[in-house]
Amino acid sequence: MKLTDYTDYTLRALIYLGLHRDELVTIQQIAEGYGISKNHLMKIINRLSQDGLIEAVRGRSGGVRLRMRPEKIRIGAVVRASEQDFAIVECFDKANNRCVLSPACRLQRALREALEAFFKVLDELTLADILHNADQVRPLVRLHLQQVE
Amino acid sequence: MKLTDYTDYTLRALIYLGLHRDELVTIQQIAEGYGISKNHLMKIINRLSQDGLIEAVRGRSGGVRLRMRPEKIRIGAVVRASEQDFAIVECFDKANNRCVLSPACRLQRALREALEAFFKVLDELTLADILHNADQVRPLVRLHLQQVE
Repeated sequence: MKLTDYTDYTLRALIYLGLHRDELVTIQQIAEGYGISKNHLMKIINRLSQDGLIEAVRGRSGGVRLRMRPEKIRIGAVVRASEQDFAIVECFDKANNRCVLSPACRLQRALREALEAFFKVLDELTLADILHNADQVRPLVRLHLQQVE
Repeated sequence: MKLTDYTDYTLRALIYLGLHRDELVTIQQIAEGYGISKNHLMKIINRLSQDGLIEAVRGRSGGVRLRMRPEKIRIGAVVRASEQDFAIVECFDKANNRCVLSPACRLQRALREALEAFFKVLDELTLADILHNADQVRPLVRLHLQQVE
């Protein structure tokens, strides 16, 4: 059971932007900061921009920055939006479900409850909560950048 | 975010055996009952047998049956045992983690809590709870077998 890399990198990108709120940050910087694919990140940044969480400033010294305040960015909402497949088992995907038990399956109900419990924790969490110890986290990204250079 | 087919079929196999507790059931029957791969199921049945949840009776009229009482089979434990990968994001897999945030990441802690909340629901559930409406579920499997024949 795992989240997609897309979701993982989406969350990391938001953390990076949250750590550098006073700067315009380039995709290159985020990619190098984490050692992850720039191409992959490009799609993520576009999506976050379309969803209004971040904004892009064009031009030579351009970049991206958070558009919403970290207090307003709920981690549960971010994960729901970026994670495409919540078919935790076959029957959650109604179009392709072939399990004969489905009409009366109590396991399906339990798995739905379990998934809700998972999201309840993330729904209560904002980007601001994650950035609460920004002073400890920021040097980790900076340190890594120095190593790359 | 999804469970593996291995886990999905493990749960279905246990439900099938729980629905037919007075019979010796063949792997063929379970595979046909759900329309799933017999080969895949064979590995699952071997594993459940090794783990002591079911027992196999050899011979011409042999088959498998539950060894433990459904009240004793916790769904959370079954899922934990059959799901190999709980690296919900990269940093959960210590051997391959490269995320620079890890030493001080609050998101990691939150995802761990979310995963625990997910399992808490399943830990409170036994196979007996799922079989509580066996009279409604049993005909669904039978009906399907008749269609296959």
